[in-house]
Formats: sequence, structure tokens, C-alpha cells
Amino acid sequence: MSETIGVVGAGRMGLPIIGHLARKGFRTIAADANGAKKSDVEQRGAQWVPDLASLGRQCSVILVCVGFDREVVELFPRLGARSGSIVAVLSTIHPATVQRLAREATGVHVVDSTVCRGGRAADEGTLLSFVGGPDSVVERLTPVLRAYSSDVVHSGDVGSAQVAKAANNLILWACLIADHEGLALAKRYGLDPERLRAALQLSSATNDALAKWGTQTMAWAEDDMAIVQEMAAECGIALPQAALNRELCRALKPRRYKLDEYGR
Amino acid sequence: MSETIGVVGAGRMGLPIIGHLARKGFRTIAADANGAKKSDVEQRGAQWVPDLASLGRQCSVILVCVGFDREVVELFPRLGARSGSIVAVLSTIHPATVQRLAREATGVHVVDSTVCRGGRAADEGTLLSFVGGPDSVVERLTPVLRAYSSDVVHSGDVGSAQVAKAANNLILWACLIADHEGLALAKRYGLDPERLRAALQLSSATNDALAKWGTQTMAWAEDDMAIVQEMAAECGIALPQAALNRELCRALKPRRYKLDEYGR
Amino acid sequence: MSETIGVVGAGRMGLPIIGHLARKGFRTIAADANGAKKSDVEQRGAQWVPDLASLGRQCSVILVCVGFDREVVELFPRLGARSGSIVAVLSTIHPATVQRLAREATGVHVVDSTVCRGGRAADEGTLLSFVGGPDSVVERLTPVLRAYSSDVVHSGDVGSAQVAKAANNLILWACLIADHEGLALAKRYGLDPERLRAALQLSSATNDALAKWGTQTMAWAEDDMAIVQEMAAECGIALPQAALNRELCRALKPRRYKLDEYGR
Amino acid sequence: MSETIGVVGAGRMGLPIIGHLARKGFRTIAADANGAKKSDVEQRGAQWVPDLASLGRQCSVILVCVGFDREVVELFPRLGARSGSIVAVLSTIHPATVQRLAREATGVHVVDSTVCRGGRAADEGTLLSFVGGPDSVVERLTPVLRAYSSDVVHSGDVGSAQVAKAANNLILWACLIADHEGLALAKRYGLDPERLRAALQLSSATNDALAKWGTQTMAWAEDDMAIVQEMAAECGIALPQAALNRELCRALKPRRYKLDEYGR
Repeated sequence: MSETIGVVGAGRMGLPIIGHLARKGFRTIAADANGAKKSDVEQRGAQWVPDLASLGRQCSVILVCVGFDREVVELFPRLGARSGSIVAVLSTIHPATVQRLAREATGVHVVDSTVCRGGRAADEGTLLSFVGGPDSVVERLTPVLRAYSSDVVHSGDVGSAQVAKAANNLILWACLIADHEGLALAKRYGLDPERLRAALQLSSATNDALAKWGTQTMAWAEDDMAIVQEMAAECGIALPQAALNRELCRALKPRRYKLDEYGR
Repeated sequence: MSETIGVVGAGRMGLPIIGHLARKGFRTIAADANGAKKSDVEQRGAQWVPDLASLGRQCSVILVCVGFDREVVELFPRLGARSGSIVAVLSTIHPATVQRLAREATGVHVVDSTVCRGGRAADEGTLLSFVGGPDSVVERLTPVLRAYSSDVVHSGDVGSAQVAKAANNLILWACLIADHEGLALAKRYGLDPERLRAALQLSSATNDALAKWGTQTMAWAEDDMAIVQEMAAECGIALPQAALNRELCRALKPRRYKLDEYGR
Repeated sequence: MSETIGVVGAGRMGLPIIGHLARKGFRTIAADANGAKKSDVEQRGAQWVPDLASLGRQCSVILVCVGFDREVVELFPRLGARSGSIVAVLSTIHPATVQRLAREATGVHVVDSTVCRGGRAADEGTLLSFVGGPDSVVERLTPVLRAYSSDVVHSGDVGSAQVAKAANNLILWACLIADHEGLALAKRYGLDPERLRAALQLSSATNDALAKWGTQTMAWAEDDMAIVQEMAAECGIALPQAALNRELCRALKPRRYKLDEYGR
Repeated sequence: MSETIGVVGAGRMGLPIIGHLARKGFRTIAADANGAKKSDVEQRGAQWVPDLASLGRQCSVILVCVGFDREVVELFPRLGARSGSIVAVLSTIHPATVQRLAREATGVHVVDSTVCRGGRAADEGTLLSFVGGPDSVVERLTPVLRAYSSDVVHSGDVGSAQVAKAANNLILWACLIADHEGLALAKRYGLDPERLRAALQLSSATNDALAKWGTQTMAWAEDDMAIVQEMAAECGIALPQAALNRELCRALKPRRYKLDEYGR
């Protein structure tokens, strides 16, 4: 427990992760581009630093929880991570970006460590973490991930945790759309969606999006699917359903769960 | 337990259902257009009759387990069901067909009682039955359904069990395609599909088709989706993902689970 | 010019066809389930008969212009067509239906003779007719078709004119949706759709649906695409774009040409 | 005719454009990252320069004909375009990229001037040029564009030529897929695709991709559609057909025009 953990990004995922780390006894230091996050961070028992360089200097493990590919790339040089430290990218970004950052890093172990199951699981410390990197690094990182994850899966080499997350997202959003189509059709034919939903959870239609019906924000669906499509284009696989789902997500987000509006 | 149960159709679903009924002590009589099924039926402890009229004469509850809309429609007049008897359509057909048969029946209670969860659940007697019809008929039918179903859900009026089944199928096949897309993409990026599949079952991507990966025949996918699309067209709802899924199922069926071939 | 022509169905296509036939000097007899069509028919110089049997008795060539598969099938026996006469199905229906009617007809030549290019071309007598049947029958029929068609294409055996029409419709509706997507996207980026449309007609995007922009009713799009999908299912080809287009047509029809509403 | 024209990129489009410019009497200077293009350029009557800076120094109008967004962005600073000169981007790239380059340029007029109709039209000097920019610049540029374009359309402000090109591409590839689906379906039903194709060109299915059937390379389809989807995502419009078409293009490219393989 001698690692000092830095968390960059105190947003919807970063903040509860900070809380779990501090509660589990890790010395935890956090930074966020938005200075207003300071009190949130401190309330959760972590130390606030105003700049990435101080964070990089003090921490042996740094968790990157910012939103986008570009932000991840831009913060790396400003971090000045210490030799021997681990920088784990929790953000959902293109696997090639993590691989490039890992290749370019000297003396620092860059890995990807994506989180699944959403905001509630983050609050409860029951996230699923995929982690991609060499065994020794993953082993050293695992106790840190366990502070906020009830499951940790070593998915393979650097980048593989992003691939696993991309597959997860692709399927998740596909299910949410399918659930909308199935329930909307049934509603037009007079069935009560809530009763049907309960029954379908007992059946071959069951899926996590159906179980969590009504709670998904779809805040990141477009970004998730943009990464999926870029990956598909790059490796030359055709994913017709995923491509359609991206567009359907875009249209669905503002009217999700409104079954009467679906398909009009 | 004084009901005598007739089962029409001793195929993949009908035969195990016959076995469960007989085992639970119901007097069970079965018929099938294919005379070669006689010994299968008798081995399961049921009585074989060569014609529908004898079955109709002797039974108070008749379960229709044939394959297609047209077969269901054609067998009804030949059944000559007794006044007061229940005829339950287990076949996956258009809800309007069941509703029409129910309207046209005089003195006979026609309901739909669709089964979910597939062949293995039929073998184990753990099917989920949706049943659509008036309370009194459903109540009388329920002990019969319980012989082969671990769950019985009263979905609403006549036809509603078909609607529920259609929604179930729509979602099921959507999930199976999404699983193919997610796993195929991950495989191209070097992940082991079997390990990923295990991990995704812990995550927000989890769905029953993923859990049963490798076992679905897709034998009925085209027929299922044809009904879904007819229903969508008739009520004027647009179901873009379902429509695409129908075509993808058609192409996928002969190469399902062959991830290297997906999307080429 | 000794043929007497019967036209069954005096609707959007039938009525102008009746007019062209009469104007070209054919003795023309028409019937329609809707008796109110009598004066329309007579104004165009044709004779009205109230029942199909009288029409069948008097005519050597009968053009069937009703709307649906079922209507075509139901009118055939009531027609009592004379031995040696030609019955040409102009309606857009499943090719197998025409083939079955042709097989079952004794002494009567049943062919399909579908019409393309829409209502305006019908008014102007500039339709394109596809005709499927034996050479001798097509030869005898051609002068009749020329009365209202500026182009007559012998597409092959009986049923082939329906296949050609199905292919035509599939492409037509695909183009109309693509035009909506292209113009709607450009509009969001500030371009004037009408100027762009004019320019695109000079380019590799040009298509007939773009040229006729603003005039298509889409009245038959759903029925057209339902036939296409049945055909695809029956011959085991996957047509992903066509399947999606069917759903998009369903949603698009009431808001066609409203570019600001597309994709919201 | 006192302008000196620079062309950057002597590829499939650039090379014939260079030829037309020289033939029409423009003093033409060309550069390409690939030095082996020197003799091709000189054979067409233009002067070869080995570096962009010499080209930028000597030319008053510069046409950029390289392949990708990134290449366009990277060559701009190396060009050192003279004050008062016009730099026209012919490459198909994101409209926002051109707009940004135009904003950042000081003393240089950056516009977009996309070309449609493909390689053959480039060879014949019958391209369609869309041009986006201020009236005065477009006016000055038009005689240059006319050297290789039989039609020049002023589409609007800077960026609008890219938008018009994107709409064109979206529709073009949609048509090519629809043509495949229509012809493949008809072929399965026994029709001769070549005869049908000829007939459909007379009908409401007609489109340029059908007329040019067998000649499209689809070399740029993926890149075209990637831009379309980025644009759609950025302006929040859902384009379900276009998204699906992108995936279908990816799968179709290596087997285009092979109708027996479509939809298997």
C-alpha cells in the first residue's frame, strides 16, 4: 500500500474512484482542468493539486480519467511522470492511441485500464476493470484497481483493454436499441412495456440494458460508437449493425425510453 | 388433473413437452403429420392417434406445436375441438392469426401460449410460457403449462403471447448479431474471443445470446423476423435495426460463430 | 387492331391507360369494384361493364390493374377469360403469384406486364412496360402496350416483368432516401438544397428520384418493398440496404421532402 | 491568361488536370511527393519542381490535389503561398478543415474547389467543379477551372464545395449499392443483369452509378463515407442509410459487380 495514486480528471467516473482509493487507504492526489472540483476532491479524502506536474512528481501510479483521445494525448507531456511509475488510461479512447503513448514513453509504464458497468457501479466501487499491459505491471496495478473494481480482467497487451471496452460498448448500445424496438412494437400492440420488460428478463431476450432500462444516460454513446467505427474501418471489417446503431443512438439519445416516439 | 391433453406436432418443442406432460401424470394424446413420430411419442408415455379428429374428440386441452401460420390455420377445422375445450397455440405465428381463430371459434377457448428459452429448456421442462387470454382460461391452463414451464406469464388478451414472443425474438437475434460484431472486431485486434466473452458476461454487454454462444441453431430466425416485420408494417412503426437484423440473420445463419468470416 | 381490350381497375394507372387505348382506336371495356368510376371510364371513350364476367366474355386481351396480390388472385376465377385470350397482370405483385396463375390457367395466356415511370408517364402515355411471357404472346400483346408505353421491354418468361419491377422499385426508393440524406446533410451545412439538387443532377450522384424530387407520392413504397423482401427471403439473398430502406420509407413517407426533419 | 498555375499532387486526378491546363495555354508548374512523377508531368507540358516552396513562389493560383486531410494540412505551411495568390483545395476533405485553413491564411485566398464525375471525366476535361469562396475569388479562379471542367458551380462560401462533394459521394455510393441489390436479386430470379440494367436506365431506377456500372473503382468510397459520417456526427443528424452504406462499401469493394456473391 506504499503507492501514491494520482487521478487526473475528477468527473463522473474519476470522482467516485478518488473516493474509493482514499477510503481504502491509498494516498491519493487529484487534478482537474476545472478548479471548481477542488472541494469535491478534498471531501473525498484526497489531496488537490492545481497542476499536472506536481501530480506527476509525487505519484507512482497515475490514473487518467479525462474524456477524449485528444485530452489524453495532450496531458501526457505535461504530466512528467516519474521513471518507474505506471500511467493507466481509464478513458475510452482508440486502442492505437494508448499503444502509441506506451511506445513513446521512456521509463514509464503506460497501460490501459478501462472501466465498465457505468456510473452507479463507480459509486458503489463495483466496476469491472479491463487492463491491458505486461504481467508485472498489471500485477502491481491490480490492488489499485481493486479499490474501485469488484472484477479485474487482464485482457492482454497494451491496447487490449480499449478493444474489450469497444466490444462492450458496441454490444451495450445495440442491446439498448433492440430493447427499444422490441418494447415499442409490443406497446403498439397493446402490451404493458413494464410488465413485458420484467418477463423478458426471464427469457432469451435478457440483457443488461434491459435490466437497467430507464437509467442509461447515453451521454457517451456517440463517442463510443465513433471509436468502434474507426477501429472497424482500420482493420477492414464491415459492421453493418454497429454502423446503423451509431446513427440510431444519435437520434435516440434525446428521446430514449419514450416508446411512443420510437419509429415514428 | 382431470384434463386430457392433446399435443399436435411432435417436433423439436412438441416432443419434450409431451414427455413432461406424461411424466407429470396428465393423460396425453399426440398427433403429427409425420407418422414416423409414433414411437417417439409412445416412448414418452403418451398415446398416439393418427388423425386430428380423434385427438379433438378426446381432449379437453389441446396444445398446437406445429411450425407455421398456415399449418395452424389449416389444422383448426380438422381438429373439431369439443365445446368447452381449450386450444392453445404454442407455435410462433402472427398475433392477428390467433385473434382471428379465437373470434371464429364457437364454444372453444382459443388462446396463445408461446414458449421461450429454446430447445434445451424444453428438454429440461424449464421453458418460459407467455399466455394470452381471459383470466379464467389462463387459470385453467396454467397447471398444464407448468408441466413443462418453470415460469408462466399472463401477458394479456389473446394474441399478446405472440406479441411478447415477437419482442423476445427481435431482441434475441439483435443480441446475437451484436455479439458477433463485438467479438469479431475484438478478434481482429488480437483478443481471445472466448476469454473476452467470459469477461463481457460480467459487464454491461451481457445478454443471454452471449451466455449461450455457440449453441443457437438460428433455425427459426428468418421466420421470427418475418413476423416482426409484418407486425411493424401493419402498425406503421419503423424498426430499422430489426429490419437490418433480418437480413444479417439470413447471411449469418450458415456461418454463425465463425468470427473470422464476419464482415468480410 | 381487332383485339378487344378489357381493363380491370380504373385507378391511378388504369384510368389513363383506358384513355390511351380508346384514343388509339382499341375497343376498350373496363370494370372496377367501385361503381363510381363508370363516368370516368365512359368519358375516356371506353365501355363500362358492371361485372367481370361480361368483361371476360367480350375481350381478347385483359389488363389487370388492381392494387394487390390478393385482389389479383381473387378476380381471376370471376373473370372467366375466353380460351385463347391474354390476361396481362400490370399490378405490382409477387412474381410467383403470376407464375402460379399462369400454370393454373387452361387455354388462357397469363403474362405479367408491369409499368414503370409513375403516374405522369401514365397520363402522357410514356410508360415503360416490362413484359414476361412467351414470344408469341408478347408479340401479340405489344401493340396494345404501345398504346400507353413509349418503351416495351420483353424481360423473359412469365414472372420476369415482376422481377424487373421489383428491382426497379428497390433502386428507386433507395435513391429517394439517399437524396434525402445527401440534401439534408448539405442543408445543415448551409447549402441551398434546390441549387445543390440542380448541380447534383450534372454529377455522379444523378438519379431519377433526384430529378423528380418533390413529386413522388411514395404511396406504394411499403408495398413495393414488402414484395422485395419476400423475394429476398425466398431466394436466400441478404439485402441489408433494401431492408433498411423499407423501414426508412415507412418513416419518411409522411415527411418526405422536409429536409429539416430528416435524421432528427 | 497571365496566371501561373501550380498543381500539388500529380495522381489520378492531378495529372490529367495538369495536362488540360498546359494544353489550354496556362503556364503550369507541378510538384508531387513522389519524384518518379517528374516525367509524367513534363510529358504533359508542365514544369516540374522538386519542392513546394519553389512552386509557392512562382504561382498565382495553386491547386491542391493530394489525397487526405492530413496531407493538405501539412503542405500548407511548406507552400509559402505569395500574398494575393489563390490556393484551391481539390482534395475531398472535411469542410471544416478548409474553413480553418482559410481563416488562418493571411493574404492568401484559400477556397475549396472539388471535382466530381470521376477519372474518365478528368481525362476528358469534362469534370464538374464545385467551388466555395467569395465571388471575386471564384470569378478569378473560374477560367482555370474551365480548363478541365465542363461545368463550374459556385456552391457558396468556403467549405461549401466540400459539402456538395460529400452529398454527391453519399448519394453515389448509395446508388451503387442499391444497383447491386436490385441486379443481384433479379439475377437470382433468372433475369439477365445486363439486359435488365439497360432497361432500368430507361426507368425510374436510373442513376449514374447504373450507367457507369462496371467502371467504378470504389478506391475512395471508404474515405468519402468517413467524411460524411464525421460531418453527420458533428451536426447531430442521423443518416442511417449512409452509415450502413459505409460498411457495405467496405465489404463490396473487392467483390463489386460480382452479383452472385452479393448477399451470401
